[in-house]
Amino acid sequence: MTNGINDKYQYNPKQFLSETEFISGINAGDKTVLSQAITLFESTHPTHRKLANELISKLKSPNKQTVRIGITGVPGVGKSSFIEEFGLLLCKKGHRVAILTIDPSSEKSGGSILGDKTRMNELSKQKNVFIRPTPTKGTLGGVGRNTKEAILICEAAGFDIIIIETVGVGQSETNINKMVDFFLLLMLAGAGDELQGIKRGIMELADCIAITKADSGNELQAKKAKITYKNALHLFPPNVNGWIPKVHVCSSYLKKGISNIWNTIKEHREQIVTNGWLDENRSNQNVFWMNQRIEEQLKIEFYEIPNIKETIKSCENDVKSGKINPFLAADKILKNR
Amino acid sequence: MTNGINDKYQYNPKQFLSETEFISGINAGDKTVLSQAITLFESTHPTHRKLANELISKLKSPNKQTVRIGITGVPGVGKSSFIEEFGLLLCKKGHRVAILTIDPSSEKSGGSILGDKTRMNELSKQKNVFIRPTPTKGTLGGVGRNTKEAILICEAAGFDIIIIETVGVGQSETNINKMVDFFLLLMLAGAGDELQGIKRGIMELADCIAITKADSGNELQAKKAKITYKNALHLFPPNVNGWIPKVHVCSSYLKKGISNIWNTIKEHREQIVTNGWLDENRSNQNVFWMNQRIEEQLKIEFYEIPNIKETIKSCENDVKSGKINPFLAADKILKNR
Repeated sequence: MTNGINDKYQYNPKQFLSETEFISGINAGDKTVLSQAITLFESTHPTHRKLANELISKLKSPNKQTVRIGITGVPGVGKSSFIEEFGLLLCKKGHRVAILTIDPSSEKSGGSILGDKTRMNELSKQKNVFIRPTPTKGTLGGVGRNTKEAILICEAAGFDIIIIETVGVGQSETNINKMVDFFLLLMLAGAGDELQGIKRGIMELADCIAITKADSGNELQAKKAKITYKNALHLFPPNVNGWIPKVHVCSSYLKKGISNIWNTIKEHREQIVTNGWLDENRSNQNVFWMNQRIEEQLKIEFYEIPNIKETIKSCENDVKSGKINPFLAADKILKNR
Repeated sequence: MTNGINDKYQYNPKQFLSETEFISGINAGDKTVLSQAITLFESTHPTHRKLANELISKLKSPNKQTVRIGITGVPGVGKSSFIEEFGLLLCKKGHRVAILTIDPSSEKSGGSILGDKTRMNELSKQKNVFIRPTPTKGTLGGVGRNTKEAILICEAAGFDIIIIETVGVGQSETNINKMVDFFLLLMLAGAGDELQGIKRGIMELADCIAITKADSGNELQAKKAKITYKNALHLFPPNVNGWIPKVHVCSSYLKKGISNIWNTIKEHREQIVTNGWLDENRSNQNVFWMNQRIEEQLKIEFYEIPNIKETIKSCENDVKSGKINPFLAADKILKNR
């Protein structure tokens, strides 16, 4: 658990800073403190939760000027290279950029932190950049739970652009969509095998599709793909906020087309500020997260009941083999509390 | 609460049949008893839940030969006319067809039952057809909860084709997709205003898109739309079960193209039986519904706590106005138990 950049010292995650130290550190934009705060929020230990709650109630209110961007795409689409170039562009423009990566695979490999450092080499060296993986926390429906909190902490620490990166293959995207202002989908040219693995339903959530790797002889194919996707997007139901999704072609390798995407995000921003959707959406998102947290907490309490997991597993097997119907199984589990 | 067809007598929903009467009635395929059973399952009263559970444990096991079809489309797309013709076709082929309609608007208007009778005039007169609206039950995330149970009861009563009809504008479709074998999306030709209102993400769930109202001078436009949608579907991520979605053109008015859709469903069926996906999917769906029921029950218990709704409402307002962040609000509500 490091901030991925300037880990001045190793620390025992159980020994957290004091509330005052946390608050002054975060308000000063200290990345090490910021990283520790995120670790604190990931803890389900009652003492930690208490400290986390005190902390979050005393942090600066989220700044409405911040831009929250979700970026997704299958492995191999070039997410890291894109974010590297995109992040460097934003830095040059004077922004402070926080990148929160959600990688379900990191649960298994544990190699994500080193991975983030390596794969965003130049970006991770920037003073105004904070890169942090957030674990997906398995089966409790808690995907993105800590990510939403992490956004608030990063914003309190003065980061004005928050990028949430996911791999687009899991359940996370629907939740990601509930915490960002803009959703960018990276895709490869060619609608064949490369697309396998992206979750159905994600394409329609995109505010922008960027076709990556338009270089090394791939340019024409990328341009063709742009036209195809543009036509396809017309078939989708319109966005409630009136935004018409854009399609761009880019190359991180040639550093081409990256600024077009930023311009599109700014254009989208202007539109949703003007028509009031930004406020409305964030307000609805907050209510969503309040309810989400309540329901999660109810589940956490339930699954903490001794031996309940064994009961569930056994009932699940009976349901799978058709021995018992799902509703009876559920009632049986609930009675076993 | 009637079965929409042969309501021989009015009954007080509180006075249910006995367990034995229910079971013999359902096993005999009696539509009045079937309808009462569905009403029983909609009740959250503990006595009713107990009877419902006893009932469901004693019903015949769900028949693997049944075909569960989800049909959705925006108001105006011609769902009723389509289901009328489609259902009549299935009747002619000797099937027993149950149609469960989920119409969120019926909560307000209460006019859906009469509506179903009127709008599927010929079909509702058929001996082997059962039409029943199921309420969406508001905010508890219970959309489709009773619908899944209703499927099991209809199957026990000998209906071999179950059609779930929704309007495609709400949250229901994701859940519907978790209870059917095949998902049919009805669309109008022309990708303009007519599409407004269909929820984003639904199109990618479709196993088949049927372009309706290909009549009265609309034929050419419908054929063009078919090509466009066919091309667009190629861009979507492939189905996990290997099925390539089909696009058809049909006219309920001219009774044209309806059998093509049934042939596609049969083709799909053959494929998913052969590759094992039918069993796998139903098994996964059952585990989903078991967990769904547990989580719902936890929520029901929570929301039944005296005054909790007032606390939630007040916190929700504070979250909306930015007075408090969503996580603190959730903790406040949870502490208020």
